[in-house]
Amino acid sequence: IGSHSAETDSQTEWTDVQKKIIPWKHSTPSLDLEMAFQDRAAKLGKSNSGLIVVASLIDKPTNLGGLCRTSEIFGASALVVGSLHYIQDKQFQHLSVSAEQWLPLVEVKPCQLVDYLQQKKTEGYTIIGVEQTAKSFDLTEYCFPEKSLLLLGNEHEGIPANLIHHLDVCVEIPQQGIIRSLNVHVSGALLIWEYTRQQVIKQKQQK
Amino acid sequence: IGSHSAETDSQTEWTDVQKKIIPWKHSTPSLDLEMAFQDRAAKLGKSNSGLIVVASLIDKPTNLGGLCRTSEIFGASALVVGSLHYIQDKQFQHLSVSAEQWLPLVEVKPCQLVDYLQQKKTEGYTIIGVEQTAKSFDLTEYCFPEKSLLLLGNEHEGIPANLIHHLDVCVEIPQQGIIRSLNVHVSGALLIWEYTRQQVIKQKQQK
Repeated sequence: IGSHSAETDSQTEWTDVQKKIIPWKHSTPSLDLEMAFQDRAAKLGKSNSGLIVVASLIDKPTNLGGLCRTSEIFGASALVVGSLHYIQDKQFQHLSVSAEQWLPLVEVKPCQLVDYLQQKKTEGYTIIGVEQTAKSFDLTEYCFPEKSLLLLGNEHEGIPANLIHHLDVCVEIPQQGIIRSLNVHVSGALLIWEYTRQQVIKQKQQK
Repeated sequence: IGSHSAETDSQTEWTDVQKKIIPWKHSTPSLDLEMAFQDRAAKLGKSNSGLIVVASLIDKPTNLGGLCRTSEIFGASALVVGSLHYIQDKQFQHLSVSAEQWLPLVEVKPCQLVDYLQQKKTEGYTIIGVEQTAKSFDLTEYCFPEKSLLLLGNEHEGIPANLIHHLDVCVEIPQQGIIRSLNVHVSGALLIWEYTRQQVIKQKQQK
């Protein structure tokens, strides 16, 4: 499982509620883990979002750190990363500004993604790939389900073909620039925002 | 006006259309300059956006480089920076991925901002501060005018009080996280996106 002593050291500044609830370094995702996360989120007074952000394909610690900050701020229920080792990276920490202490992080290695996505489908999540394909929905026209899982692509290769088959839908951001596409942290942030905006509007309409 | 030789060196890879049209190092913004920009944008086949992103208060080259990339991709008509020297910064260039070659950049020093904002008001722009204030509009409820100028705040101090008086409106992004607010590049990206989304929807409704 790795070096527990170093991990404990880095947690010494945490509050008791954090230390007790999160089983860091958990090697596979489980329902127990997520229930613990939801319990913690409730204790922290955060609303229970149906949004999961999956960043397992992302390589750069700066992008992961930024996504961690943005996901926490919009109340995503979890950020999924390819390795929890990223959290020790200084660039990650510089960009995340400690958001990893308040956002549930789950480790799902790229080789585990197919199984993970299948499991999430059975739990009622719609699996949404952020990718430009011939069949992608335009972000200005896509209506997010309450239980949405966003799969972000790798910085260079996007979402590999073998994973595209396991998606329920692809969504793309209309772009008119001459240079290449948006940074993956920004792409993720725009979809997280759009999900959030739609949920806010739905909640107002129900009142 | 500074070192012209270094500037010329960095432009050697540019295409002719770029070399001829952009008067870099222009010390004050002018209508001539912006007309040249619009002319260039038209030649490049880009649509003519009514959005100006003002980042003169931003200090970090990474944030400016990121905003340059994002502004270019969504077809902003210009990015305003506090100093054109940032463009030579390696961190800026790393994040901008050469977008500065395709997006009009205007230099407006922080001390010139009041005059610049006043001038833009007379040109019909609505001056929109991205800031949390008691009177801010929620981004989910704000309807952007076609001619919108976004003023982004400094990473640490936001928008100073003396500039708040010169704004037509403040817009804030609803945030529910426990850590501090969004990174300024991400905040800017969300407003640029929201402006773009609303324009796309308006254009579709007109058809």
